[in-house]
Amino acid sequence: MMKARVTVTLKNGVLDPQGKAIEHALGGLGFGGVGSVRQGKVFDIEIDGTDKTKAQAELKAMCDKLLANTVIENYAVEIA
Amino acid sequence: MMKARVTVTLKNGVLDPQGKAIEHALGGLGFGGVGSVRQGKVFDIEIDGTDKTKAQAELKAMCDKLLANTVIENYAVEIA
Repeated sequence: MMKARVTVTLKNGVLDPQGKAIEHALGGLGFGGVGSVRQGKVFDIEIDGTDKTKAQAELKAMCDKLLANTVIENYAVEIA
Repeated sequence: MMKARVTVTLKNGVLDPQGKAIEHALGGLGFGGVGSVRQGKVFDIEIDGTDKTKAQAELKAMCDKLLANTVIENYAVEIA
């Protein structure tokens, strides 16, 4: 059993209204000096087996097919 | 200008129906060997200044006040 973390973030240039809202809310709460805020998603996935290379390939396929929208999002896969 | 990444994940034991839905969807797409899937959030935040200790404290306060619901969520702060 391996534990993997997939992080999906918006590509540069893609508008992020949710991030902008958080940025303004932080300003409103008195947090100065906050530049841009961008929000993304993280998936913690347990994968059977011990072959990291195979798991990496499988996680990449999961991202391409389901977890990320590769038109507007980047993803990164880490296996612990 | 420092770049920080805040990762917010559900605490153990908190139900994650969204993660469960993804787990089933992955199974339906033919990905075998997938154990549990848990979904979380990630925030990429730019902070002015160069004092990492101060930024760390400020990010912790942001998590406690806005970014995380500490009743059901854990958070981790990394400053690049």
